[in-house]
Amino acid sequence: PELRKDPVTNRWVIFSPARAKRPSDFKSKSPENPNNNSSSCPFCIGNEHQCAPEIFRVPPDPNWKLRVIENLYPALSRKLDHPNGQNDDSSSELSGLGWVVAGFGFHDVVIETPVHSVQLSDLDPSEIGDVLIAYKRRIEQIKQFDTIKYIQVFKNHGASAGASMSHSHSQMLSLPIVPPSVSTRLNSMKEHFNQTGKCSLCQVQSKDLLINETSHFFSIAPYASSFPFEIWIIPRDHSSHFDELDNKKAVDLGGLLKLILKKMALQLNNPPFNFMIHTSPIQVTDSELPYSHWFLQIIPQLTGVGGFELGSGCYINPVFPDDAAKILREL
Amino acid sequence: PELRKDPVTNRWVIFSPARAKRPSDFKSKSPENPNNNSSSCPFCIGNEHQCAPEIFRVPPDPNWKLRVIENLYPALSRKLDHPNGQNDDSSSELSGLGWVVAGFGFHDVVIETPVHSVQLSDLDPSEIGDVLIAYKRRIEQIKQFDTIKYIQVFKNHGASAGASMSHSHSQMLSLPIVPPSVSTRLNSMKEHFNQTGKCSLCQVQSKDLLINETSHFFSIAPYASSFPFEIWIIPRDHSSHFDELDNKKAVDLGGLLKLILKKMALQLNNPPFNFMIHTSPIQVTDSELPYSHWFLQIIPQLTGVGGFELGSGCYINPVFPDDAAKILREL
Repeated sequence: PELRKDPVTNRWVIFSPARAKRPSDFKSKSPENPNNNSSSCPFCIGNEHQCAPEIFRVPPDPNWKLRVIENLYPALSRKLDHPNGQNDDSSSELSGLGWVVAGFGFHDVVIETPVHSVQLSDLDPSEIGDVLIAYKRRIEQIKQFDTIKYIQVFKNHGASAGASMSHSHSQMLSLPIVPPSVSTRLNSMKEHFNQTGKCSLCQVQSKDLLINETSHFFSIAPYASSFPFEIWIIPRDHSSHFDELDNKKAVDLGGLLKLILKKMALQLNNPPFNFMIHTSPIQVTDSELPYSHWFLQIIPQLTGVGGFELGSGCYINPVFPDDAAKILREL
Repeated sequence: PELRKDPVTNRWVIFSPARAKRPSDFKSKSPENPNNNSSSCPFCIGNEHQCAPEIFRVPPDPNWKLRVIENLYPALSRKLDHPNGQNDDSSSELSGLGWVVAGFGFHDVVIETPVHSVQLSDLDPSEIGDVLIAYKRRIEQIKQFDTIKYIQVFKNHGASAGASMSHSHSQMLSLPIVPPSVSTRLNSMKEHFNQTGKCSLCQVQSKDLLINETSHFFSIAPYASSFPFEIWIIPRDHSSHFDELDNKKAVDLGGLLKLILKKMALQLNNPPFNFMIHTSPIQVTDSELPYSHWFLQIIPQLTGVGGFELGSGCYINPVFPDDAAKILREL
């Protein structure tokens, strides 16, 4: 695999031909449902031998409750010859047509439960907390690699949200670049901070946009939601990195995430959804990022994306967040 | 409708509640096929009374070959009280939570043929040229409104690419802002120009990425394609604005677009697709944008988007553009 940056769109792209059929075999097809047959599911307990190597399990015995494993079809390669510490920004090279970086990185899967029929929102708050702490533990391991700049944690639920397996899981993609959305977000928060002296997420606690809150977190429909019923869960304490989460706050966040996912499923008829953790680059410390504040974004898949969105980067959202927040708050 | 800019993501969003059911009626559902019944299709010749008002038709008589009409469900309103010339950038206001702009704009539909079963690629090069000249003519009309900053021309083909009508058509959304993708693109091209003294699209003529070429245009699989089999059609002459297209070049482009769409349909099993015209903001002249070069982007819908792409703004593309170009070139 290889990463390339287009000089026109300024966008980084990962080329990962190993994930694909031969290019000439690409055909359009209708979306298929993910595998719902638990007897042949490699993520089920007892089928560990069908999976790519394990990184760790919790607890560390045969009766595990969650496992972190390598992705069998990784988008990036952990095997490229990138000796730790010898790689820096000068490793991106300008070809005649744009920038290029070797496709070094980690693509991990977090199996959230041993049981095929259990979804993340079915778990107890403390069990969801365990999943969140597993993300943190894996981030702490990957931090040792100077070549990794950013870790994108995300979950795809449902085939049309990108899930190829129905067994509840999330993914962690550790990248040798800071992705464009992250740079844009950090620049934007920095500008706001420089102008007002305040963090834009600390300021966002509007009554009209609030859905639910706990001791350490609050959830809102964001002011400029790109998608209908988009939801953000934000820590009350100003904190730049997700991996500052402690065990107590993880259980608190687990409870709020469970509530929000249950409400979303009830209100929106169990939609496919994605969630993403938006954090800060891993080689940068808190004190260097006084304007940054991590959060978790949830997007139910209710509307498609067309040429307008692809072309302009603008989204058309038919639901005001004030309305979405009110509906979810009162549910 | 209203436009809002999020202070965190720095992204503009159009809120257009009139397009939607009541927010509480939003439910997840499987994608439906667009209406394939020509007898009830408002875009078919004879059913003009079922459409929103016409802007113009070509030729201007009952036996039209194409029509430009208002969108019956516009994302922006042409009826807001925005007297021409009195609006400027100061019309965006900072609420407590972010920037907000009134949702003034035009959302037009170009019906590309009177016949329900005819697709754009079935038309002659000169007929496709007529469609392109219709875009140009409508852009020239909208240019009179100082409040409009950018016009996004796009086509959605197939339900999963966002088309709600199967009768061949494209759309033009005229915006009171310069959208984020356009600013990013222009900044990126400007940077390249300042560093090298050259336009990044004039330089892009790589043999390995070339698909087909004509007297005035060439088509490539771009170096950092975000999507498998993504294709760009680029004018040979350095030109910042699409509406500089003349009649002769429109026919030439029509022929190349027809060839590329036919090849794509053949190779990829008639996939849903989007195309977008990437041009320059309309109130800015050529001489102010020496680094800008318009092009047409075609994206076949072969892969879905998941949490990674939504979160990071990076795309995972399983096909190298060199391979896609070779396959399409040799077809």
